[in-house]
Amino acid sequence: MTGKIETLTIGSYLIQRLNELGVTHVFGVPGDFSLRFCKLLEDDDNITFVGTTREDTAGFAADGYARRHEGLGVVLVTHGVGALSIVNPIAGANAESSPVLVISGAPGVAERAENPLIHHSFGSPEAQMKIFENFTCSAIALNDLSQAPRQIDQVIESVWRNKKPGYIEIPRDMVDKEIHIEPSNESFCQFESSEEATLDEALSETASLLNQAKSPVILAGVEVHRHGIQNELVQLLEVSQLPIAATIMGKSVVNERHPLYLGVYQGRVGSEEAREIVEASDLVITLGVMFTDVNLGMYTARLDPNQMVRANQGTVRIKHHEFPKIILKDFILGLTKRLKSREPVSRTKPRPIHQPSVPEKNSLQKDGDLTMTGIIEILNQQITPEMAIVVDTGDCLFAAAELRVPDRTSFFASAFYTTMGFAVPAAVGVNCASPGTRPLILVGDGAFQMTGTELSTCKKLNLTPIVVVINNMGYETERVILDGKFNDIENWDYGAICKLINYGKEFRVETAGEFQTVMENAIRDKNNMVVINAIVKESSRGMRLLASEISRRLQSKT
Amino acid sequence: MTGKIETLTIGSYLIQRLNELGVTHVFGVPGDFSLRFCKLLEDDDNITFVGTTREDTAGFAADGYARRHEGLGVVLVTHGVGALSIVNPIAGANAESSPVLVISGAPGVAERAENPLIHHSFGSPEAQMKIFENFTCSAIALNDLSQAPRQIDQVIESVWRNKKPGYIEIPRDMVDKEIHIEPSNESFCQFESSEEATLDEALSETASLLNQAKSPVILAGVEVHRHGIQNELVQLLEVSQLPIAATIMGKSVVNERHPLYLGVYQGRVGSEEAREIVEASDLVITLGVMFTDVNLGMYTARLDPNQMVRANQGTVRIKHHEFPKIILKDFILGLTKRLKSREPVSRTKPRPIHQPSVPEKNSLQKDGDLTMTGIIEILNQQITPEMAIVVDTGDCLFAAAELRVPDRTSFFASAFYTTMGFAVPAAVGVNCASPGTRPLILVGDGAFQMTGTELSTCKKLNLTPIVVVINNMGYETERVILDGKFNDIENWDYGAICKLINYGKEFRVETAGEFQTVMENAIRDKNNMVVINAIVKESSRGMRLLASEISRRLQSKT
Repeated sequence: MTGKIETLTIGSYLIQRLNELGVTHVFGVPGDFSLRFCKLLEDDDNITFVGTTREDTAGFAADGYARRHEGLGVVLVTHGVGALSIVNPIAGANAESSPVLVISGAPGVAERAENPLIHHSFGSPEAQMKIFENFTCSAIALNDLSQAPRQIDQVIESVWRNKKPGYIEIPRDMVDKEIHIEPSNESFCQFESSEEATLDEALSETASLLNQAKSPVILAGVEVHRHGIQNELVQLLEVSQLPIAATIMGKSVVNERHPLYLGVYQGRVGSEEAREIVEASDLVITLGVMFTDVNLGMYTARLDPNQMVRANQGTVRIKHHEFPKIILKDFILGLTKRLKSREPVSRTKPRPIHQPSVPEKNSLQKDGDLTMTGIIEILNQQITPEMAIVVDTGDCLFAAAELRVPDRTSFFASAFYTTMGFAVPAAVGVNCASPGTRPLILVGDGAFQMTGTELSTCKKLNLTPIVVVINNMGYETERVILDGKFNDIENWDYGAICKLINYGKEFRVETAGEFQTVMENAIRDKNNMVVINAIVKESSRGMRLLASEISRRLQSKT
Repeated sequence: MTGKIETLTIGSYLIQRLNELGVTHVFGVPGDFSLRFCKLLEDDDNITFVGTTREDTAGFAADGYARRHEGLGVVLVTHGVGALSIVNPIAGANAESSPVLVISGAPGVAERAENPLIHHSFGSPEAQMKIFENFTCSAIALNDLSQAPRQIDQVIESVWRNKKPGYIEIPRDMVDKEIHIEPSNESFCQFESSEEATLDEALSETASLLNQAKSPVILAGVEVHRHGIQNELVQLLEVSQLPIAATIMGKSVVNERHPLYLGVYQGRVGSEEAREIVEASDLVITLGVMFTDVNLGMYTARLDPNQMVRANQGTVRIKHHEFPKIILKDFILGLTKRLKSREPVSRTKPRPIHQPSVPEKNSLQKDGDLTMTGIIEILNQQITPEMAIVVDTGDCLFAAAELRVPDRTSFFASAFYTTMGFAVPAAVGVNCASPGTRPLILVGDGAFQMTGTELSTCKKLNLTPIVVVINNMGYETERVILDGKFNDIENWDYGAICKLINYGKEFRVETAGEFQTVMENAIRDKNNMVVINAIVKESSRGMRLLASEISRRLQSKT
C-alpha cells in the first residue's frame, strides 16, 4: 500500500487482499445476496469466477484449489440456501486442514431490520455464522463499516496461517460501502517463527536419538503439503538418507519413485513393505502427521510413543514430553543442518532401500476381469509426472495407496473426513490451481452419482481430465461391513454423462486389456476429456482389510 | 402398548414410534455409522428404506414426503459427511414448517472415548448437534440408555406438533442396546386444544367484524396444509360463501377450480384478479399465512392491519391485539359454526365470484416460440386431479402462481426458503407419500443441474413423473436483478439424463405446438417417466415483476 490514505469499497478491499495472495479462481454459485460481489469478481482482471453446478461442488473445488495452491481457496455463496449447502465440504476442509475462505452474501443490514422473513432465511440472523463457527478458525460478519478492513485481514490471516477454513459474511448493502485504509507497515500474511531455545533443545534431543538409533525412519503427513515444505523435506532426506513412508493423508509428499520412499504406511491396511520397516524401526520421526483412524489403518498401526519423535506445526513431541511453539519448517531445516554438520553414523543394519514395484511388463491377463489391483498396476505403468491424481472415497482411496505418484503434492483425496463426491469437483479446483497438470480422477460409482455432473464445469473451463468410474454397482466398502439391499445402487451408463453435458469421450471397459488400451489412448488424447466406465469385479486388498477392521471393531463395541 | 413391561432395543423402539405415525418410507444414504439402524429399517415390514443418490436429495425427499403425508417425513444419514450434507434441506424444512425427522448415526460412545480423530469427524463431538439446533425444534443425542425412550418421544412429538424438523443422533453402539418400556396411559402425539375463553372471545370479535364488513375475503396459507385442515377450510367456505385467495406458500389449499377461488395473492406479482379483490376488501381474514417477502410479492402487497384478522397456529391477531393459545383448526371450526347459526348478511356490494380463466381452446400460436405463459396455459388445459405438481425455484415458481391446480395439497414448492434443486427429489418424496398421484415436475435448467440426477431413484421405485426442464440457459431470475456472465450456465442435453440413468423417455421442444403434443402424449403414457427439454424464449410476467422489485429494492438500499 502507498503512503497516503486510500479509499476503497469493502468489496474491492477484499478482492485486493485475494490478489495479494495470488488467488486466480473463485468458485461458487451466484445468488441475489451475493450478486454484487460476484460482479466485482467478474470485473477483476486477475480473478476468474468459476460458476459450478451446485454449491457443495464449489466448496470441494475451492478445497482442491487450496491444497494445490498452497495459499488460499475461495468459495462464494449466497445466504442460506448457498452457504448451508457447503457445510459438508467446509467441515471436510477443516478436518483435513485445507485453507478455504468462505465468502457468503447476506441480506442487507437495512432490510433485515424491516422484516425477518426474507427469502433464504431459516432461523435467527446470526444462525448461519454460528453454524460456521463450528468448523472454521475465524468467522466474521461485516456489519460494521469501521471494523471491516481489520476483520477481513483477521479472517484471511487466520486461514492462511492455520490452514483451516474461515468465514466472511457480507450483507449485500455493505459491498459498495466506502472505507478508508490508512497506510500501514504491518505486513500481511507473514510466517511465524519458532521459539529459538525451545527449537534448539528439541533438535538436540532428536539428533542425539537419531545418532543412537539403528533403524530410524521418517513418516510424513499432510502438514508437509499444507505448509509447503516439500523441498525442505527432500533436502532432509538427501542429507540423512533416511527411508521415508507417508500416511495416506500425506501421500505424494515426495515423488513416490524416489529411492528412499517406502510407500504408504497405514498399519495392516497399507504397504506391507512400509509396515515391516516402520514397525521394526527403533526411531520413527513423524513430520506433520495427523493420527487419524484411517491413517492408522483403523488402529492396526503399531507405533510405540517411546520410540517416536512427533513433529507437527506448533508442537514437537519426543516420547512423552512436548516442545511448544515450534514451526514445522524450522524443525525440518534445523534437523537437516545438524545432520549435515556431522559424519554419517554407520548403522549395524543397513537401511533398506525401497525398489519401486512397478513391473517392466504388464503381467495381467488381458482378457481377464478387471480388478482394482489390475487397475492400479496398469496405472502405475502409465501415469506421468504432469498428472494430478484425485481420488474419491471408497475402494479408490484404499487401492490408491499402492499408486506410485510420480510428482510431489499430486495426490488429492478426502483421506480422513472421507466424504464421498470429493474427487470430480476437487479435480476442477486442483486443475485451476495448476493449469499445467491433467487430472486423473478415480471415482466410485456411488460417489460419481453424488457429484459427477460437475464435469460440466470442465467444459466451461476447457479442462480435459481422465475420469475412471470404478463401477462395482454399490457401496462396496459398506458391503464388507454390513450388507443389505441398501448398499446396491442403480447401474448408470456412466459414460453417457458426456451426452448429457455435451462434452468428452466415453468408454466402457470390462477387461484389463481393454482398460490398458483405453487408458493409453486417453493419455495420448490430451485435447479431450475421457470418461471410462470401468466394470470392476474384485475390490482391493487394502479395502477388504480396512473394511473388515471396521467391521471387527463395530462388532466388538456393540 | 400392553400392560406389562416390554423389552426393546433403542433402534426398534424408534421404528415402533415411526410405525405408529404411519411412516411408510425413510430416505437416506447408508454410511458405516448408520448401517445398523439402516438394516433394522430394511427388515421392518411397514417401512421401505429409499436410498437416494446423495444425502441432500434425501432431505428434500423427506420434506416432500412430510408435506403430503401430514405426519412426518424421515431422513437417515451417517455422521458428519451425511448429516452435514442435509443442513440446507433441513433448514429449508424449518423455514417452511415441514415436519422432517433427521436420524443421524454417530461414532459409538465407547470408540469416541478412545480417539477423537475418527473418520467423518470435523470438530467437537457435540458440533453436529449444535449445528442442527439452529434449525430444529428439538435435538437430542441418545448417549444415555435410561433417557432414550423419553428423548425419542420428546423429539418426535415436538416435530409432529410444531411441524418443524427435529434431530435424533444415535451412536452406533447404542442401536442394539436394550431398554425396558413401562406401560403408560399417556398418549403419543395428541392434538393440543385451544384456551376456551380466549377462543370464544376471538371468534365473537371476528364474527362481529364479518357481520359489518362489506367485502370480506379469506387469504389462506401454508399452515392449512401442514396442520391438515383443508376439509375444515372448505366447510368454512361453503357456509360463508367468502371468496378465497391463497399465498404462494399456501397454493392449492383448496381445489383451484373451486368457484370461490380467486388465485394467488402476491401483491403486484401474483394474480391481478386476486390483488384487486384482496386489496379492495374491508376485512381480510388470513388463515395460517406466513408474512414472508415472497408471499408479499417483495413487499408490493398492500394489506392494512386495521382491516385484518390474522389467525395462525397458536395465535389470532385482530387489528393490533393478540389472542394466544388458539389452535388454528379450532378457530376455523368455531367460525364456521357461528356463521352457520345466523342469517347470511346481505352486502351492498356483491362478492365477486372468480371465473377460472382456462380458455376453451388453446389460443397460442402452435409454431411460435415457447414462452412461460404458453407453458402455463397449455398445462392449465391438461393437468388432471391425480397430478402432484412440484415446482422448483426461479421462473417455474413465479409462473406457477397462474396454474389452476385441480386438487388440494397438490402443489409443492420451496416458496419462502426458495432453495434451488428442490423439485426433483421432493417429487420422489411426495409420490412415496401418495402412491396414486403422478408428479408433474417443473424445474429450471439451473436447478436441474443441481439435483436432476435424483430421477435415478424414480427408476428404483418405478415412479413415472413428467419432468419439464425449463431451459433458458442460465439463472434467469438473477439476470433481471444484476446480469453478468456468471448467470450463464452450460447448455446440457437435458433429455439425455434418460440415457445416463437408463430410464425414461426424452423429448426436446421449442414451440407451443410441440410442447402441447408432447405433454398430451406424456399424460397418456402413464407407464413411463418423461423428460422434456423445453427451450423457453420468454419468462413469465410474475418473474419479471418480482425480480424487478428485488432489483429496485436492492438499488434503493445500497
